[in-house]
Amino acid sequence: MDFAYDSRTEHLRAELTAFLEQHVYPAEAVHAAQVAEAGDPWARPPVMAELKAEARKRGLWNLFLPDRRYGAGLTNLQYAPLAELTGRSPHLAPEALNCAAPDTGNMELLAEFGSERQRERWLGPLLEGEIRSAFCMTEPEVASSDATNIATRIVRDGDHYVVNGRKWWSSGAMDPHCAVFIVMGKTDPDADRHRQQSMVLVPRDTPGVSVRRGMRVFGYSDASHGGHAEIDFSDVRVPVENLVGEEGGGFAIAQARLGPGRIHHCMRLVGMAERALELLCRRASDRVAFGRPLAEQGVVREWIAESRVRIEQARLLVLKTAWLMDTVGNKGAHTEIQAIKIATPAMAEWVIDKAIQAYGAAGVSQDTPLAALWAGARTLRLADGPDEVHRASLAKRELRRWHTPTPA
Amino acid sequence: MDFAYDSRTEHLRAELTAFLEQHVYPAEAVHAAQVAEAGDPWARPPVMAELKAEARKRGLWNLFLPDRRYGAGLTNLQYAPLAELTGRSPHLAPEALNCAAPDTGNMELLAEFGSERQRERWLGPLLEGEIRSAFCMTEPEVASSDATNIATRIVRDGDHYVVNGRKWWSSGAMDPHCAVFIVMGKTDPDADRHRQQSMVLVPRDTPGVSVRRGMRVFGYSDASHGGHAEIDFSDVRVPVENLVGEEGGGFAIAQARLGPGRIHHCMRLVGMAERALELLCRRASDRVAFGRPLAEQGVVREWIAESRVRIEQARLLVLKTAWLMDTVGNKGAHTEIQAIKIATPAMAEWVIDKAIQAYGAAGVSQDTPLAALWAGARTLRLADGPDEVHRASLAKRELRRWHTPTPA
Amino acid sequence: MDFAYDSRTEHLRAELTAFLEQHVYPAEAVHAAQVAEAGDPWARPPVMAELKAEARKRGLWNLFLPDRRYGAGLTNLQYAPLAELTGRSPHLAPEALNCAAPDTGNMELLAEFGSERQRERWLGPLLEGEIRSAFCMTEPEVASSDATNIATRIVRDGDHYVVNGRKWWSSGAMDPHCAVFIVMGKTDPDADRHRQQSMVLVPRDTPGVSVRRGMRVFGYSDASHGGHAEIDFSDVRVPVENLVGEEGGGFAIAQARLGPGRIHHCMRLVGMAERALELLCRRASDRVAFGRPLAEQGVVREWIAESRVRIEQARLLVLKTAWLMDTVGNKGAHTEIQAIKIATPAMAEWVIDKAIQAYGAAGVSQDTPLAALWAGARTLRLADGPDEVHRASLAKRELRRWHTPTPA
Amino acid sequence: MDFAYDSRTEHLRAELTAFLEQHVYPAEAVHAAQVAEAGDPWARPPVMAELKAEARKRGLWNLFLPDRRYGAGLTNLQYAPLAELTGRSPHLAPEALNCAAPDTGNMELLAEFGSERQRERWLGPLLEGEIRSAFCMTEPEVASSDATNIATRIVRDGDHYVVNGRKWWSSGAMDPHCAVFIVMGKTDPDADRHRQQSMVLVPRDTPGVSVRRGMRVFGYSDASHGGHAEIDFSDVRVPVENLVGEEGGGFAIAQARLGPGRIHHCMRLVGMAERALELLCRRASDRVAFGRPLAEQGVVREWIAESRVRIEQARLLVLKTAWLMDTVGNKGAHTEIQAIKIATPAMAEWVIDKAIQAYGAAGVSQDTPLAALWAGARTLRLADGPDEVHRASLAKRELRRWHTPTPA
Repeated sequence: MDFAYDSRTEHLRAELTAFLEQHVYPAEAVHAAQVAEAGDPWARPPVMAELKAEARKRGLWNLFLPDRRYGAGLTNLQYAPLAELTGRSPHLAPEALNCAAPDTGNMELLAEFGSERQRERWLGPLLEGEIRSAFCMTEPEVASSDATNIATRIVRDGDHYVVNGRKWWSSGAMDPHCAVFIVMGKTDPDADRHRQQSMVLVPRDTPGVSVRRGMRVFGYSDASHGGHAEIDFSDVRVPVENLVGEEGGGFAIAQARLGPGRIHHCMRLVGMAERALELLCRRASDRVAFGRPLAEQGVVREWIAESRVRIEQARLLVLKTAWLMDTVGNKGAHTEIQAIKIATPAMAEWVIDKAIQAYGAAGVSQDTPLAALWAGARTLRLADGPDEVHRASLAKRELRRWHTPTPA
Repeated sequence: MDFAYDSRTEHLRAELTAFLEQHVYPAEAVHAAQVAEAGDPWARPPVMAELKAEARKRGLWNLFLPDRRYGAGLTNLQYAPLAELTGRSPHLAPEALNCAAPDTGNMELLAEFGSERQRERWLGPLLEGEIRSAFCMTEPEVASSDATNIATRIVRDGDHYVVNGRKWWSSGAMDPHCAVFIVMGKTDPDADRHRQQSMVLVPRDTPGVSVRRGMRVFGYSDASHGGHAEIDFSDVRVPVENLVGEEGGGFAIAQARLGPGRIHHCMRLVGMAERALELLCRRASDRVAFGRPLAEQGVVREWIAESRVRIEQARLLVLKTAWLMDTVGNKGAHTEIQAIKIATPAMAEWVIDKAIQAYGAAGVSQDTPLAALWAGARTLRLADGPDEVHRASLAKRELRRWHTPTPA
Repeated sequence: MDFAYDSRTEHLRAELTAFLEQHVYPAEAVHAAQVAEAGDPWARPPVMAELKAEARKRGLWNLFLPDRRYGAGLTNLQYAPLAELTGRSPHLAPEALNCAAPDTGNMELLAEFGSERQRERWLGPLLEGEIRSAFCMTEPEVASSDATNIATRIVRDGDHYVVNGRKWWSSGAMDPHCAVFIVMGKTDPDADRHRQQSMVLVPRDTPGVSVRRGMRVFGYSDASHGGHAEIDFSDVRVPVENLVGEEGGGFAIAQARLGPGRIHHCMRLVGMAERALELLCRRASDRVAFGRPLAEQGVVREWIAESRVRIEQARLLVLKTAWLMDTVGNKGAHTEIQAIKIATPAMAEWVIDKAIQAYGAAGVSQDTPLAALWAGARTLRLADGPDEVHRASLAKRELRRWHTPTPA
Repeated sequence: MDFAYDSRTEHLRAELTAFLEQHVYPAEAVHAAQVAEAGDPWARPPVMAELKAEARKRGLWNLFLPDRRYGAGLTNLQYAPLAELTGRSPHLAPEALNCAAPDTGNMELLAEFGSERQRERWLGPLLEGEIRSAFCMTEPEVASSDATNIATRIVRDGDHYVVNGRKWWSSGAMDPHCAVFIVMGKTDPDADRHRQQSMVLVPRDTPGVSVRRGMRVFGYSDASHGGHAEIDFSDVRVPVENLVGEEGGGFAIAQARLGPGRIHHCMRLVGMAERALELLCRRASDRVAFGRPLAEQGVVREWIAESRVRIEQARLLVLKTAWLMDTVGNKGAHTEIQAIKIATPAMAEWVIDKAIQAYGAAGVSQDTPLAALWAGARTLRLADGPDEVHRASLAKRELRRWHTPTPA
């Protein structure tokens, strides 16, 4: 047992920290100003392109991708502390490094399950950061945490698939650079529960695709992430070669995609909490109320100490989960992936809430990153399965360990 | 001791409930659509004028004002359950009844402290709902929960006062109908702590007044409330007759205004929580996940039961506080006003959070009122003094009750 | 709506407060010393008899009993604040006033359902405080929150009933003065769910009755309450005239007994929390750590303020419940009785925990009443139905209010 | 970074698990019965001697001691998972392995600071498990979390030291085998804050030593740990050679002793929580209420999942702390030692509380280990410094990291 990061990780952490301090944090205000100036709410501010160029120049590009052919070839355990750092500026840093959801998951998916032709057409430009992509799974009418509920149909018709259905919370799809949607739907509703679904690639400009609106998250458009679209697919035809993997393989591909997706979220949440704690400490030192700095008030000290204690615990569990994924695989790490999905958003929400409270009205406003951080953390108690679903599932496995009835 | 509402209250509750069901709830979607259509984010949708006309016709107008000369002449105890009902649709109902903050506090202030001329010019149109008003106290640079920190200066110059300073979180001031600002500033920084401040009425179009921007609350503009403005006052001259009350009386007037303001917030918060609980129950009955309605899941039932238990307790404390204000005065009810200011926002935040969780992604979006309700409740843990300030103050009084050291 | 106690209540509160201050609090240390001296852990210290005599002399006797023939004839709303006061010294005051569980419930039961002969033989001496009694319902092997699980059999055999079964948590039964057990069992397992049970009176010295042991609550024997016995009933014969009410009426009688029993617990819990808060404040004023009294530490102030806020809310809900029981009956107050059963023990537990923390090691020891108060509050999250059962039931009723599926 | 235990640790974990299952768990009931039979509440039941013999035979002896001359020579990281396992039966297992507090800390202290003569006389028999020892630091009148408050005097008089003072919570001192007390007192009240204190060894039978009483913990005597004594030292004379280390060195020695002491407590708390979770799961599977096992109720599943998530996080932080102590020393691990002291008792308390709730009345009684486990966990939120002191101190260090005032 050893709790030290290896040398490659330490090196990359130092590089990334320098990039954040020199380029990303200063760009936050620039980005906000450029958004305010733009007439189009969905336009992407030019500062992002500059950040991407700089990150690439510094070798901080596609770090998320374990496949050495395409990415940095880092293990989950090596990537975790880097993803954490990007969470400190979650609206800019992940995209600047080409490590932003949902593109990360989509690139992994194409790298693993895509045909050569699919990889050429879509994975290449994604790896270059030239286009973005969306993952269309969640639907408005049903509880999508149960994949068998999916109502979108994908019907084979000669050399084409015809897609019909409505998706929402398709993150990134409001971005004008978003060029392709990976759409999950049912090809065979009569097959076994987990063999009914398939995935197809739908170019954004395919006839029948209508992006209806952007969903809001506590008033935010999340335009810096490309928003969250509600999309109608109405008799959308794509060639059969746009199928990802095989017919009936959609559920398995989605599962393969989810594990890393969840841990990436959790890594970034740790960084979000760290940013909030830093802001809380700075505010506590600077702000005087009733004759002394907040930092001298016992209640604020409790917040700070408790934040540190919670962050440390959550980070270690995320790191151990990454290590398990590396050593026993995503399936072997299933319990731990659920555990961090339960623990980390709640932890980050708690820490950010305290920082908000210390900032007073500024904390809920656009003048600190805190309110937006909070909205992100809160939403992750729902996204990729609500806490309650993960808890029920984790408990069932725990109960199985002690199945033999015995007296206390 | 008697826990039944009196007959006038019961009558008005029935009237108001009918108005909400027949007009206000249906107007929520209309209002959202009109906002979306309008080019100007601060434009007020026409549906509001219709609601106001209807409310007035039904005798549901200016219910908040205890002064029979101007308003309904209800006691706090009678008004409390009505204010609660308006909290069920907090973005429409209070204004529809001409019972929205900050106008309510401003009208009370003018009724109690305003000169006849001030009442004629400003109170009249406010009572008619023709104009709106703002209260400019909070400042960006200082902890405004300590009123002695106020930096805005109000300096007498012949027959005028000259105002210089910056205010923010001036709620309602982004509304184009907002015609007048009540501005708190220091006339005599060398006077006793609580005699340094005065208040003057500043018409919005006075030279030197610049409304800089609207503050956001978790991504929301709160345009339906007239937003929250940051305002510069730069050599703003108003005639001396615009002084409210006497020089040095600003702190006392602000205190007089705060008590009712806080309880109104708390009353509405109870209604916000009730609305969220209703939505939670409806969702729980309608939504099926993993083969059965949410309503049959133990965790959801815990949320519902716990919500009911918390709401009932908070409501009773609000009602008792109203009764105390009526019977022993706002000063005599000081501890209880602080107690509800501590208890009620946290209660509402908790209940709304559970409703959000039951709705999944819809809960954080624009498709239910929940996310906006949540942002309002969260902000009230800060507004009018953060919880921590109220707790410290309440504790001091409690400690004084047991001042004689005695062994346990 | 009126939040003032009536004059009779105010008078009795003053009387009772004087009795507590002059006699009960000083007797706490005496009682502990007499317990320590006695060889027999279940012996009752002589100081109790003195307290009873004094209380009786002062007219503070049988206050709980609404039936004027036997008791003070107070409404629930009048008794509530008095029961609260007894909760400040829960190991002495209730018994000193002849208002201790389970005798209170048993006396109510005999007054309402007992035959004249039963009332003469048992109710008389109980009203005089000459004997004590136990209520034998809970069984070790089954979830007793579901009354249909009861396994004890009561079989008619000529002029007798024969009782067989095992009970535990028969509170008071370890007291040598405990002369009679009210035993619940099944007379007809084939009847309707709620008509299977009956109750019989079993004198303690009846052959076949074996008191096995006293149950502990955390490390406490609860000897001052007469402990909690595990009792075997083995072919115990009692004459048929010992039946309480009618055959098959046991469930209904138990239900009738539970409502008042639960509210009495909750009233006392409010007093327990008040006592803890007083002790917390005194400690905070007296104890110096790191150069200043605890009372000046922000965290301790938060505890005090939050305690006050929680106590006030819980008390009001208890009082409203008492008022409902008086005005619409125990059935009409069912939701509120459950609500206070959920809210009050948790509130008291929280407050007492904070007081313990302020006292440090003394707080968990025998040197303050706090640890024993805590154990009592914690246990009431289980006793008379665990929180979870009450929450599930309360939620079901809440859900029924909103049964029509409607969109949000 | 590597999360696997090393092979020696894995081997010892397997050995210890076998010992627990074959000997310790079965001995719990035997121990309780022997305690009940013994007339003397402080007598030690014979089963303990058998357990000690068996543990020694299996090489599970003095595992805690890193000094290879005397103990197993394990690192903190190697010992942590073993100490955790002993926490599963905290009243028997630690002593059975000669790894029980306060002897562990006392042995470490003697090994590091004791003279050769002291080690011969006291360390030898302690390592053999022939005698026990107590550590007398805490005093009744002062806040002992601030060591400068200590009032006990140790005054040199020729070849002797004379000790006067009162100590309490001297754990283990009620055990008749407890032969020696390590007493902290002031030798020079005028020296620098942390040079005033010294430690002397006081044999239990020295004239002037009076063991007054055993302190209770939530009603428990903790006799299985040797209780917690209040002790008077009245003109107690010991030869100067009984000084541990040097005059004025008491504070430094106490600090050296505290770090390992705290982490041992935390390790065991993880095991206590694991035991409680196991019991909770077994109960959930076995107990039927309202027609189905508790294990199928959503609320119980939430408890189980949340318990697992909390335990995993706390364990990792404890292990990382152990690793830090091994790699950068106790001082370098100061923040983490405080962090686990804050996090672990609260975690264990939470988990055990849920298990108690699942067991109903049995959970608070002597029929499961849960209530006693709970009392132990609760007390550790106070012992060795209350949470609040650790939080305030940890926060100060965190604040220092961000000392440069910067805007958000």
